[in-house]
Amino acid sequence: MSVTPPTFASVTAARGRIAGVAHRTPVLTSRTADERSGATVFFKAENLQRVGAFKFRGGYNAIAALDDAARRRGVVAFSSGNHAQAIAYAARLQGAPAVIVMPSDAPASKLAATRGYGAEVVTYDRYTEDREAITGRLASERGLALIPPFDHPEVIAGQGTAAAELIEETGALDLVVTPLGGGGLLAGTALSAGALSPGAAVWGVEPEAGNDGQQSLARGEVVTIPVPKSIADGALTSALGRYTFPIIRERVAGIVTVSDAELVETMKFFASRMKIVVEPTGCLAAAAVMTGKIDVKGKRVGVILSGGNVDLPALARMIGD
Amino acid sequence: MSVTPPTFASVTAARGRIAGVAHRTPVLTSRTADERSGATVFFKAENLQRVGAFKFRGGYNAIAALDDAARRRGVVAFSSGNHAQAIAYAARLQGAPAVIVMPSDAPASKLAATRGYGAEVVTYDRYTEDREAITGRLASERGLALIPPFDHPEVIAGQGTAAAELIEETGALDLVVTPLGGGGLLAGTALSAGALSPGAAVWGVEPEAGNDGQQSLARGEVVTIPVPKSIADGALTSALGRYTFPIIRERVAGIVTVSDAELVETMKFFASRMKIVVEPTGCLAAAAVMTGKIDVKGKRVGVILSGGNVDLPALARMIGD
Repeated sequence: MSVTPPTFASVTAARGRIAGVAHRTPVLTSRTADERSGATVFFKAENLQRVGAFKFRGGYNAIAALDDAARRRGVVAFSSGNHAQAIAYAARLQGAPAVIVMPSDAPASKLAATRGYGAEVVTYDRYTEDREAITGRLASERGLALIPPFDHPEVIAGQGTAAAELIEETGALDLVVTPLGGGGLLAGTALSAGALSPGAAVWGVEPEAGNDGQQSLARGEVVTIPVPKSIADGALTSALGRYTFPIIRERVAGIVTVSDAELVETMKFFASRMKIVVEPTGCLAAAAVMTGKIDVKGKRVGVILSGGNVDLPALARMIGD
Repeated sequence: MSVTPPTFASVTAARGRIAGVAHRTPVLTSRTADERSGATVFFKAENLQRVGAFKFRGGYNAIAALDDAARRRGVVAFSSGNHAQAIAYAARLQGAPAVIVMPSDAPASKLAATRGYGAEVVTYDRYTEDREAITGRLASERGLALIPPFDHPEVIAGQGTAAAELIEETGALDLVVTPLGGGGLLAGTALSAGALSPGAAVWGVEPEAGNDGQQSLARGEVVTIPVPKSIADGALTSALGRYTFPIIRERVAGIVTVSDAELVETMKFFASRMKIVVEPTGCLAAAAVMTGKIDVKGKRVGVILSGGNVDLPALARMIGD
């Protein structure tokens, strides 16, 4: 497994590994989105990716990059969200055993979905147990390769394939904007944009409640915050990673935040005008562009919609008001 | 304007007219849909079409097929649904004045949307006035070309472009299944499938409450029924048309019906698993395939999702249960 920082060459290698397996998701446009933002906006619809999120790209690539013996021994991951399902499904497709460490109070639907992809689920008490210790023990006892949710060179490289496809389809862009949690998607996007559209400014967007990325970029070092509360449940990270932060510091133009209310408005826009379901986290970048928090007037802007996994009752509550 | 029945050559001409204007909508696949149906299913996502429905294709084509003088005089249409917005928007894009005749009690959002596309809206009382008489009078007084919602050669030809794109992308199919109201989409699809995938059986799907198409196909003549009640508000027609019926009688393998409850289940499937919003009418064909009402086991099946226009409160009610 690679332990050197990922580069655009890593993204290119990842594209080869995921070709024909990950969906090449469509790039969607909307006259209304253009009118509201004053820009020409290209939405990369990773909500239509396998398992409903871009996470499939990085998860599949990280498993495919293992040597054959390691892949046969299997992989382990901790996640209660899209990464869990991405690893479970990507492992099954490659014949690798997968163990997913999930909190015992995770929604039953998520536990069931992860098991449904054929993974072994190990639960822990999130108030008394340390998931990283559990995961580490499983890795060493069973010889499993640990695939973390973002801070891993091959995960970052895999996430970068979405922006590579986007720019290949649209041509050069003035800005590329992505949701930001731990930084896997943002770092991978920065690698792709740097190579394929070198003039593009790359921006990340966090929930207002947890702007550790914004603080980290301002201070030039990783800032750790308490786990934030937001409906953007895929971006509730405390800190950027040791692989993701250096790439972000070097290549990212800026980081802005949006509120939960702005995320809900953006979800409604996507459901009513563009006929797609985008989860709150997946709306981060779009919300910043549509509300003018990033100056995009007259520009050609790529926006990554990172995922679409939201329970129907929650979706109904959010769009029904 | 053509008054001879449309052929596949008409579809080909329509493709040239709408190229670069209508979206080439994506073809989506789903492992879960394949598992549930036992088939390999390709969904043509016309909910992602401009104005949120395939109707844009036929509307744009019919206006583009007018001679220049007629187009400058303008067009008139009656509709309270997707056809209204399709004609309004397609007319604006081609610099043609448009008058849309709508019931005075149509949802305010639909009246506003149609005006928002630049059309003049003429309202009528649906209990005391005859919309066809009003439309006819407007056409003759102002020299406007009447573009009916389905029974028109160039409308049918335009609707056939969706299936042509689908089959071009998937290769030959065993079945192609579409929603059925007045038959514009089904007839156009039959023309395209007949030319591009001659072995494909073409099926139409109606709401259970209004199976005039099924009755008509069985009797070999157009059967007229009272306006049915169903949540499939784009398929509440009383009878097939004089252009659509002969094509359907000659080329369509069968017509089945689905219930409103089955449509709601299918909407939920699309929102939760495929992350797209499909209106009840747009779910007709998919519901028949997913419930096994059409035998698709082991087959390669094209399914047209005809539209995605549903008010958010209604959507929230339907998916939130």
